[in-house]
Amino acid sequence: MRTIVIGTGTLGAAVHKTLVEHGHEVITAGRTSGEFQADISDIERLKAFFAGIGSFDAVANAAGDVFPGPLEQTTDEQWANSIAAKGMGQINVVRAALPYIADRGSFTLVSGVLSDEFTHAATIGTTVNHLVEGFVKAAATELPRGVRINCVSPTVLTESVAYHPYFPGFTHVPAAEVALAYLRAMSNPITGRVLKLHRTDS
Amino acid sequence: MRTIVIGTGTLGAAVHKTLVEHGHEVITAGRTSGEFQADISDIERLKAFFAGIGSFDAVANAAGDVFPGPLEQTTDEQWANSIAAKGMGQINVVRAALPYIADRGSFTLVSGVLSDEFTHAATIGTTVNHLVEGFVKAAATELPRGVRINCVSPTVLTESVAYHPYFPGFTHVPAAEVALAYLRAMSNPITGRVLKLHRTDS
Repeated sequence: MRTIVIGTGTLGAAVHKTLVEHGHEVITAGRTSGEFQADISDIERLKAFFAGIGSFDAVANAAGDVFPGPLEQTTDEQWANSIAAKGMGQINVVRAALPYIADRGSFTLVSGVLSDEFTHAATIGTTVNHLVEGFVKAAATELPRGVRINCVSPTVLTESVAYHPYFPGFTHVPAAEVALAYLRAMSNPITGRVLKLHRTDS
Repeated sequence: MRTIVIGTGTLGAAVHKTLVEHGHEVITAGRTSGEFQADISDIERLKAFFAGIGSFDAVANAAGDVFPGPLEQTTDEQWANSIAAKGMGQINVVRAALPYIADRGSFTLVSGVLSDEFTHAATIGTTVNHLVEGFVKAAATELPRGVRINCVSPTVLTESVAYHPYFPGFTHVPAAEVALAYLRAMSNPITGRVLKLHRTDS
């Protein structure tokens, strides 16, 4: 299986490693590193990237920044940039890759724990994660040629120590465990699913 | 209670009527009609509107267009305009009104049946509705001074006959029944809730 992994940070690197260990031929793309450059907030560059990459079976996206802040202090720029990057950026990965991905191929996107849990500066993150998960659920019903789409929703990564203070009392998850969820999404006959790497409390 | 109703279409008119019948002093705002003009996709005009309106206790939004199409044919413009109008437009209503709304005031936004159900051209609608519902759930935890926020999620309106062919097999709901949900959201001690005017199938 020939798989494109977008994102070369902690999560992207872990997804890359896990997929290689499981026999995938992996192509990496990052904003400034990786074998190819692809800024997911720039759909024209994404289209050129996927058009030039040759055939592929799966796209695993581990890129997409949000720019959080306490709701009352959020700026127009934080909202616009967060929706453009993690929100429309991921939607545009799918739109740009769809003409080229193989029949019965798969997309795996990323949301996060703030879909279901809240902190003192969660609103932008929650909003963008819901956008992504809504897209995944509906796109799963519309994608042609047996192409599947799922989403991985991790809590804060164990390795992302600098973020831990923003998630007081939250458990964290090793990037390698999140990477397994990507593999699970790609390798099983599921679509429209959100694979949660966090507890869902009532 | 002094309540601002944004949107002068079928739903906005029904909300207006129901609130007046239940003793609210209602101020109406629409893009081109109503007592005041307020295009919710223009945050600067929204800020000027709320700054000039005097004190108010509640905002009920019944405005927000989406521009749907089959996923493979959706354009950048359809995505951008849908997110700007029904998505960021409603978020900006809250951001612009928040400095002026009374303590223990309330916001009621609108999502829709495509959050939970799908048609052959649902993806933009589903995505934007999830964005709105995610915002409502998180904002409910962050809003100050006891201000509440909820969301009404109607199926297609009985009165919107022209839309019925796009929702084959869906039940419809009279605008007056949706308007009652707005009143329920405003008048009871609930926040972060999505009030559904449609069946939720498993």
